[in-house]
Amino acid sequence: MADDYKTRAGQTFNRDAFESLIKRKQFYWQSFEPYGGTKGLFDYGPPLAAIEAEFTNIWRDHFVRSEKMMELKCSMLTPYPVFKASGHVERFNDFMCKDSKTGDILRADHLIKDVLEARLKGDKEARGEKVSDEPEDPKKKKKASKVKNVAVKLDDGVVQQYNDILATLDDTVAQWGQMIKDHKMVNPVTGNEVTDPVEVNLMFPTQLGMSGKEQAYLRPETAQGQFLSFPKLVEYSDGQLPFASASIGYSFRNELSPRNGLLRVREFLMAEVEHFVDAEGGKKHPKFASIKDVELPLLDRDTQSGNEAKGISPSTTPQTMTIGKAVETKLVDNETLGYFLVRIYRFMERIGVDTKKLRFRQHMANEMAHYASDCWDCELKGSYGWVECVGCADRSAYDLSVHEKATGVPLRIREPLKEPQHLEEYVAQLDKKKSGPKFKKDAGTVQAALDALTQDIKEKLSISLQEQGKVEVEVPNLGKVELEKDLVKIEKEKRTVTMREFVPNVIEPSFGIGRILYHLLEHAYWFREGDEARSVMSFKPTVAPMKVLVVPLQKDQKFAALIQQLEDRLDDEGLSYKVDQSGVSIGKRYSRNDELGIPFGITIDYESLEGKTAGTFTLRDRDSTKQVRASLDDIVEAIAKVVKGRWSWTDVQQRLPAYEGKEEEKE
Amino acid sequence: MADDYKTRAGQTFNRDAFESLIKRKQFYWQSFEPYGGTKGLFDYGPPLAAIEAEFTNIWRDHFVRSEKMMELKCSMLTPYPVFKASGHVERFNDFMCKDSKTGDILRADHLIKDVLEARLKGDKEARGEKVSDEPEDPKKKKKASKVKNVAVKLDDGVVQQYNDILATLDDTVAQWGQMIKDHKMVNPVTGNEVTDPVEVNLMFPTQLGMSGKEQAYLRPETAQGQFLSFPKLVEYSDGQLPFASASIGYSFRNELSPRNGLLRVREFLMAEVEHFVDAEGGKKHPKFASIKDVELPLLDRDTQSGNEAKGISPSTTPQTMTIGKAVETKLVDNETLGYFLVRIYRFMERIGVDTKKLRFRQHMANEMAHYASDCWDCELKGSYGWVECVGCADRSAYDLSVHEKATGVPLRIREPLKEPQHLEEYVAQLDKKKSGPKFKKDAGTVQAALDALTQDIKEKLSISLQEQGKVEVEVPNLGKVELEKDLVKIEKEKRTVTMREFVPNVIEPSFGIGRILYHLLEHAYWFREGDEARSVMSFKPTVAPMKVLVVPLQKDQKFAALIQQLEDRLDDEGLSYKVDQSGVSIGKRYSRNDELGIPFGITIDYESLEGKTAGTFTLRDRDSTKQVRASLDDIVEAIAKVVKGRWSWTDVQQRLPAYEGKEEEKE
Repeated sequence: MADDYKTRAGQTFNRDAFESLIKRKQFYWQSFEPYGGTKGLFDYGPPLAAIEAEFTNIWRDHFVRSEKMMELKCSMLTPYPVFKASGHVERFNDFMCKDSKTGDILRADHLIKDVLEARLKGDKEARGEKVSDEPEDPKKKKKASKVKNVAVKLDDGVVQQYNDILATLDDTVAQWGQMIKDHKMVNPVTGNEVTDPVEVNLMFPTQLGMSGKEQAYLRPETAQGQFLSFPKLVEYSDGQLPFASASIGYSFRNELSPRNGLLRVREFLMAEVEHFVDAEGGKKHPKFASIKDVELPLLDRDTQSGNEAKGISPSTTPQTMTIGKAVETKLVDNETLGYFLVRIYRFMERIGVDTKKLRFRQHMANEMAHYASDCWDCELKGSYGWVECVGCADRSAYDLSVHEKATGVPLRIREPLKEPQHLEEYVAQLDKKKSGPKFKKDAGTVQAALDALTQDIKEKLSISLQEQGKVEVEVPNLGKVELEKDLVKIEKEKRTVTMREFVPNVIEPSFGIGRILYHLLEHAYWFREGDEARSVMSFKPTVAPMKVLVVPLQKDQKFAALIQQLEDRLDDEGLSYKVDQSGVSIGKRYSRNDELGIPFGITIDYESLEGKTAGTFTLRDRDSTKQVRASLDDIVEAIAKVVKGRWSWTDVQQRLPAYEGKEEEKE
Repeated sequence: MADDYKTRAGQTFNRDAFESLIKRKQFYWQSFEPYGGTKGLFDYGPPLAAIEAEFTNIWRDHFVRSEKMMELKCSMLTPYPVFKASGHVERFNDFMCKDSKTGDILRADHLIKDVLEARLKGDKEARGEKVSDEPEDPKKKKKASKVKNVAVKLDDGVVQQYNDILATLDDTVAQWGQMIKDHKMVNPVTGNEVTDPVEVNLMFPTQLGMSGKEQAYLRPETAQGQFLSFPKLVEYSDGQLPFASASIGYSFRNELSPRNGLLRVREFLMAEVEHFVDAEGGKKHPKFASIKDVELPLLDRDTQSGNEAKGISPSTTPQTMTIGKAVETKLVDNETLGYFLVRIYRFMERIGVDTKKLRFRQHMANEMAHYASDCWDCELKGSYGWVECVGCADRSAYDLSVHEKATGVPLRIREPLKEPQHLEEYVAQLDKKKSGPKFKKDAGTVQAALDALTQDIKEKLSISLQEQGKVEVEVPNLGKVELEKDLVKIEKEKRTVTMREFVPNVIEPSFGIGRILYHLLEHAYWFREGDEARSVMSFKPTVAPMKVLVVPLQKDQKFAALIQQLEDRLDDEGLSYKVDQSGVSIGKRYSRNDELGIPFGITIDYESLEGKTAGTFTLRDRDSTKQVRASLDDIVEAIAKVVKGRWSWTDVQQRLPAYEGKEEEKE
């Protein structure tokens, strides 16, 4: 637990109290509870389901509508060859060890981390240093008795060695097995030895149909479907780069040991953008000028690791810098990447993330995929520390290229050259009359494979075709294909090129919605001064799960007509509300609904019924508990404006007269 | 193909032309096209993805917000025991045959239907009767050459026999194997014999984690997660029946032979409501009075099958009847079911389904699950005939009961009785001191199993406990458990009951969103009088994929400022739009965007720039092609009102002055 994590009101964050509220108000829970619950799967109850619906609408407005992206909905079930080509079959893996007796599965890196950290704590205890009682992972509290730090003093050299291992753990995968043996690590829960780590794939496998021939996976990201829709996007957008697709959809990862509630789950909603851009133009963005002065908290690579040559010592403090300067100084690779960092920041503001608990952290070289040219994570700070919530990567042309190679289907842009080019180069061309009958429907694939060869290879093949009368070519799905002299011609030809053909690069902002929602909950949470029991969820009205609480002063038939009138008006505006007519005091009713984060309360009292104040109601602001009093129309208009994000509570106070509650309504 | 299916303009529906538009405008396509496409999986392109987003928002407003339902989001990955208890592991099956040589999979009922229908057509041909050229399933067109009807005349008795088999196919599952043999049915595509039909489960299986111990399925419906959240719903609603949960989410069915495009797919979005109600009150609905005079087209059971006793001859024509009368006459079982039929009807109107192509069809007794007490499907008519799009079933207390039984967790309502009841009945009670150490954490489960026993069984057990000193009880997850005399007491006791405990009934409206969207597309489609090439998608503005098309008269820098002004205003209102500045005529630009169903067009012309008309634009209605001319504010206000469903085009015409286009803008 991040010890220094504070609520929005600067109070020490008590995760027990927070989780008790989450449970009490049914925000989320582990799925299939009557069957004992299932690890890594969660259900959202009414408040969080409502927040998620608002989230996706705002996301769609902020990205799809406002940036004119092409939204796609692609299938989750995905046939094997797609992930074979994308590299997921080979590389989407974790390492696991098995408990030699119980067969329990442990993630190798978690095992090493847990064991060594426990030993280091035991060492500190033995040295009489203060040790936090709380285990690193508070979800493991119940098991903590078994993983207890034993107060054993270690040699200074060993302490150093353990710290070194932990600091570089991600880079030493190949040595994990040896480490586990050398340092006699056992399953901390059972004390049993563990097997050597083996690599396991984290995708959920299944079968399409009953033939047993169509192996498939549940996708671990929404991106591949978007890449495979590339020809559709080109058509829909008339092929004018840059253009972007976007998708809000579910993905699945068969986590070995799901941890930390909503932060590491097996089934999750994502929102991903694939922004396609011509790499030749330097990845400029047409709207960059309009956002270049926005300041962002940027924690770049050099600052994280330190860079002696540049005189930078290691730090975790981000620099606040305009995105214009960051791109100019190449801290951020290009305008498009920079533009999206700003759009992500603006989105986070819009949904009510506390931007003081937000930073952009650049990936270190060893964190990035080999093809990526730059990558920044938007991290949010919560009680679990800094957590990656949005990744924003420049994936170069990798994805389209691998699928093009695997299928022979061109995934590229063709655009007219300004000046025609005169080239002399090798061309490999099948003889159509002869290759047609021989290859039938595969003739196109063979020709595509020939087209894809480099000039160097074509030159070599041209020579061997002359010398040996045949050549061998690797063709996707067909394997090695032999082509005799009469089937193919490989010769140097002069030609004039009028079109440029290229595979665009892609910038991919990828949002983990569950992780962001979890931080929204933590960022919204605080309690009224001096009373930890009176907690409040200060959601922005735009995302709040319900907009209005209606509280008649007491149960009295006289209020019925006014309540109905109010309900009709709120229904008319499409505002969600709840009438709380229970017998407790108004203050108490407000208090318990503050925990749901309802931003507005409307009171109907006897003043609403008669005299000069007939037909007026009070409107209460959840966060300040301040009230105004006005007519039904004025109040509903004010609520609608704030909920749409057009007014703030301050605007309401400036327009509608303040109201001081009477004693019995006081909270 | 339903030969009598007409477009909304009464034109003969040409499915080829319709599908060509769907493809041209990227509404949807088979997933993973570059890899050859995958059966039963579809991607939605930008227009259909946008319509689906509008659909879910309206659904949420119409059901969740307006009916104050509790929205839930439950996991798709579901552990085995859940579907074991629900009955899906045993009964969610289809029968398949294998081609004896190729191993191809055929759905047994499809095989029988295809073969016999082909033979009957061949017979008709041989008898010189007219036979429609179109195969029953137009997706099979390409295979049609192989399934060709051979003109062979059959004996009259055989014709009769085939017709009988086809009419009762769903009731004769056990005889399908014999039928296939008796009538020498072979795979119509290959001519090979087929294996005996075997039952196969249609859920997609997978594994949670790597232990191999946690078998799981992808859910085939969203309902089970909602039932298992029942204790949360009770808490959230303070246990006041009736209450309802609702869920919009994906489900999966491993269809053996996916057919008919979006109508039978392997991965689909559903919206399901579980409305919990006390069966004792007659399933009344508090708001029934407000909708009782709404007329619905009802095709009841007696009308479908005919009922001699009541003097009803079989028919497929629904009766139009108020829901009040339908419930009064018991045509519809109860008020709650009736209320939801009306809400479904209103929803369909709201999203723009052609209600002349809508009917409610009651399930025949053999179509319903054994526990269901009544079920009505909302069917929509399209070019494939009448298709079930929403099911609305009264599922009694089945679902909660089976999960209660399987888990021992009470899924029931407790409410105070008006009068306390004095009972004398058998009570089976574990001795806590002794059972605790023996059963440890399972003690509660054993007690729950005892509590669940009927009075009859308790009486019997009480006797055998006395006689044999022990009893045996079946406990969920533990199997048979032996309880000795010192562990348990089973005796008749007097007690006063102040609470009533019961498992509520559930009414379940279940929407297949893809199927409804498909019919929305067909219902929206028509073409301008006399020109089949000028097709139009007349989506309601509320669901249209994009709201506004902006067309400057021609490319001219003079228009730039006005275009920008217009864009800013539309952005401000959150209205999606597209600026079409291509070089073709305004008429042509409108025409090609009519195919996307954009309801409004705004023209910027030279009149917009100067004179009395400066700052005015024309606004065109897609369906009538009529135009009005007004200021930016008036136009944007009108669009916003229509898009929200508050105004119609007629309202706009009454408020804003008509405009007659000039010759060059004419369409």
